[in-house]
Amino acid sequence: DGIHSNALKVERAPYFSVGQKFQLDDVIEAQQFDRDILNAIFEVAQEMESIEKNSPGSQILKGYLMATLFYEPSTRTRLSFESAMKRLGGEVLTTENAREFSSAAKGETLEDTIRTVEGYSDIIVMRHFESGAARRAAVTAGIPIINAGDGPGQHPTQALLDVYTIQREIGKLDSIKVGLVGDLANGRTVRSLAYLLAKYKDVKIYFVAPDVVKMKDDIKEYLTSKGVKWEESADLMEVASECDVVYQTRIQKERFGERVDLYEKARGKYIVNKDVLKVMQTHAVVMHPLPRLDEITVDVDADPRAAYFRQAKNGLYIRMALLKLLLVGW
Amino acid sequence: DGIHSNALKVERAPYFSVGQKFQLDDVIEAQQFDRDILNAIFEVAQEMESIEKNSPGSQILKGYLMATLFYEPSTRTRLSFESAMKRLGGEVLTTENAREFSSAAKGETLEDTIRTVEGYSDIIVMRHFESGAARRAAVTAGIPIINAGDGPGQHPTQALLDVYTIQREIGKLDSIKVGLVGDLANGRTVRSLAYLLAKYKDVKIYFVAPDVVKMKDDIKEYLTSKGVKWEESADLMEVASECDVVYQTRIQKERFGERVDLYEKARGKYIVNKDVLKVMQTHAVVMHPLPRLDEITVDVDADPRAAYFRQAKNGLYIRMALLKLLLVGW
Amino acid sequence: DGIHSNALKVERAPYFSVGQKFQLDDVIEAQQFDRDILNAIFEVAQEMESIEKNSPGSQILKGYLMATLFYEPSTRTRLSFESAMKRLGGEVLTTENAREFSSAAKGETLEDTIRTVEGYSDIIVMRHFESGAARRAAVTAGIPIINAGDGPGQHPTQALLDVYTIQREIGKLDSIKVGLVGDLANGRTVRSLAYLLAKYKDVKIYFVAPDVVKMKDDIKEYLTSKGVKWEESADLMEVASECDVVYQTRIQKERFGERVDLYEKARGKYIVNKDVLKVMQTHAVVMHPLPRLDEITVDVDADPRAAYFRQAKNGLYIRMALLKLLLVGW
Repeated sequence: DGIHSNALKVERAPYFSVGQKFQLDDVIEAQQFDRDILNAIFEVAQEMESIEKNSPGSQILKGYLMATLFYEPSTRTRLSFESAMKRLGGEVLTTENAREFSSAAKGETLEDTIRTVEGYSDIIVMRHFESGAARRAAVTAGIPIINAGDGPGQHPTQALLDVYTIQREIGKLDSIKVGLVGDLANGRTVRSLAYLLAKYKDVKIYFVAPDVVKMKDDIKEYLTSKGVKWEESADLMEVASECDVVYQTRIQKERFGERVDLYEKARGKYIVNKDVLKVMQTHAVVMHPLPRLDEITVDVDADPRAAYFRQAKNGLYIRMALLKLLLVGW
Repeated sequence: DGIHSNALKVERAPYFSVGQKFQLDDVIEAQQFDRDILNAIFEVAQEMESIEKNSPGSQILKGYLMATLFYEPSTRTRLSFESAMKRLGGEVLTTENAREFSSAAKGETLEDTIRTVEGYSDIIVMRHFESGAARRAAVTAGIPIINAGDGPGQHPTQALLDVYTIQREIGKLDSIKVGLVGDLANGRTVRSLAYLLAKYKDVKIYFVAPDVVKMKDDIKEYLTSKGVKWEESADLMEVASECDVVYQTRIQKERFGERVDLYEKARGKYIVNKDVLKVMQTHAVVMHPLPRLDEITVDVDADPRAAYFRQAKNGLYIRMALLKLLLVGW
Repeated sequence: DGIHSNALKVERAPYFSVGQKFQLDDVIEAQQFDRDILNAIFEVAQEMESIEKNSPGSQILKGYLMATLFYEPSTRTRLSFESAMKRLGGEVLTTENAREFSSAAKGETLEDTIRTVEGYSDIIVMRHFESGAARRAAVTAGIPIINAGDGPGQHPTQALLDVYTIQREIGKLDSIKVGLVGDLANGRTVRSLAYLLAKYKDVKIYFVAPDVVKMKDDIKEYLTSKGVKWEESADLMEVASECDVVYQTRIQKERFGERVDLYEKARGKYIVNKDVLKVMQTHAVVMHPLPRLDEITVDVDADPRAAYFRQAKNGLYIRMALLKLLLVGW
């Protein structure tokens, strides 16, 4: 039955039909994209930059209605998607308290909620606290689902905007050196990024992390199996001088619980500051998924190599591209 | 004084002027509609189905602004109204924390809040925790008010979408048999539905409820006074085999308080499952106001007689119709 | 560097260029406006009244996107701004939980949040709990910032709508007598109003306040230094008979803490009721920033001199004017 086939298609079929552009049904996880699809999405994202600059104007998605169904608040992600939809002339239904739909007292299933909301909208952008929730929604829905983060699982649009930013800033994705710095154990961002970088040729990845939040073995093994060179280093300065991209991340205090001393120690260990900038190459950039605390000092912001606010803006273009592709195709 | 006359008109005057279409000022309670008005609204709702399917497109309500003034959250109802407004090209101001307007600390009256919000919008859709609040708002406001539920009182758009669904699914409202199942004591949905069905001819209603949540005497007496046949039954299978509509409802746990054992017993008593489907007639349907727990088993969903998600969708069409009628008339 | 210059311009430069209309960059505090700029804004606000009456229609801000970044909820102010934007054909991104951006756990700075949100929108309307936050945002942002209240600091659009209402109701701002009544110690509204009135000629201000909430010396000294006549009075009837405007305010219970007896005594002291109306002149008006409790009795509402709901509506026109001026200029 057609209504159940969307997400299965994601698993079974490639996104390309021979002789044609691919058809994108849902955005569930970073793994669903190969480098050809990524390139195709990035081309549309770049077109979106000019549309955004020419607005007022775009009516590409006029008459389309996006529901932001957020089971936990994420203002940053939500505003980014809603801006993307509205920049293209589309409209938005917002809820940041979607849990009320399926409150303990009432107990509605996610599937029933999706069947109701798909009656009110043309696409659902969903944030959920449970890993796998987006896939369940996609299996149920007859309209496209975009995963805007499901618990410790996936946040594929973040992964896409990271790779897109490297492409835009460095000009290529093959033959690059990327330093992943900070909380590599808990950050789903860096894990997804490592995964996607493995799709490109001649990539070298450096892991620079305090001992308590080192990159886990599964990603290391995956990279090795794909022939991606990687090494661990405790010398941020040396890595910074080598890399095209220094990708800094926030040490996630909330993962340390009572162990405040461990957190404080980890937090101060690798800071990107003006000294780091000095050893970085002219063409290299500093990235960060935001929010940042003091792992990048504020005096770095004025340097043209500080790419993190441009990176946040790229999230808008990637989401505009995905909304266009899912709703009206090529 | 004109500003105070709206809701009084609801009570005093019929909605029809001789030789003309009726003028709808506010939607406050199910009782305000007679069968002629219901039919007229249903005709507009059916037109809305084609508008919705042709969107992007409708600009019927372009430039109109609806305020959703919700004193308690009800995401499902709110999204349905907001989708309806936006499908017709209108715009929305949203608040789900309207209580903040009149917080204990500040103590503003509902009337003052309404006078402020009517300055910002063209129509107010209001959800309130107090019975009668919608009527008070309508008395105050110079713009139309739609009651989206006021406490234990009324939820008239739900009642309308239920009757509309029967009309659409069965093709008629006279000479039908309807089984009301589940929590008949606490469900304002089934009470309103019984009330509206009394406006039609040759209707037979079956009540199928656990003892602790039986239909109350006021509705039974009302039906008898209107010449509507009704009976109570403990045999869901027999009722299901007779009826055009099996209207199942959720046992409302929150009404049982500490009496968890009573709740559990009531909850499991009447389940609509595949066995019930087997005895139902081909043309008959299962309805439910949603959310459901397990009072309808999931394996019923795939049967074409499972009408509850179509019923939810009909809420969109009914609300589109009401917004159109209240804002731009016929 | 251009990105940091906006708010500094507010301080250094006048808003007028010789031979040209002024350019408005941000709206941060009431003091930034002189009487020429106020008059210019009021002319645009009055044009907005006809636009609003002719809607559906205006597309002046079509394609523009306003972000309402509220660090504390203020439904009344938020809806007023969002209505203003939508009445002009613009679009809105809403958040009433902006604190989540910079939650204690995550600790993002206001500056970083602003840099992210300015990537998604064309103008930011900001409500914050800290005095000075709006100025910090304006220093950071490359797009216009409107202060919708920052803690005990400023709420400049309220001050503008108050002065605009006097202009509209009385027909002039020079040579008027204004009675400020109620909580003059805690009300930022009356303090800003007194400040702005000092820009006009031959103004006389009466302070009528319970002893515990008397107008503070700084404003009195400021008025004296500007040659504005003022006096304190305990006789509301006499003041009301003299004044063009009786500006009543709510005694702010939340400022009294445990001292409930003091609050109750202050609260009942000066009530605007029908007896006060009787001594007021025919052309005079009663104003109030709302919400009101019982400091104006409900039976005053029907009198044409009760201007407070028109005053609330004027907030819409002032905000429409400011959005237009900031986004598309003259």
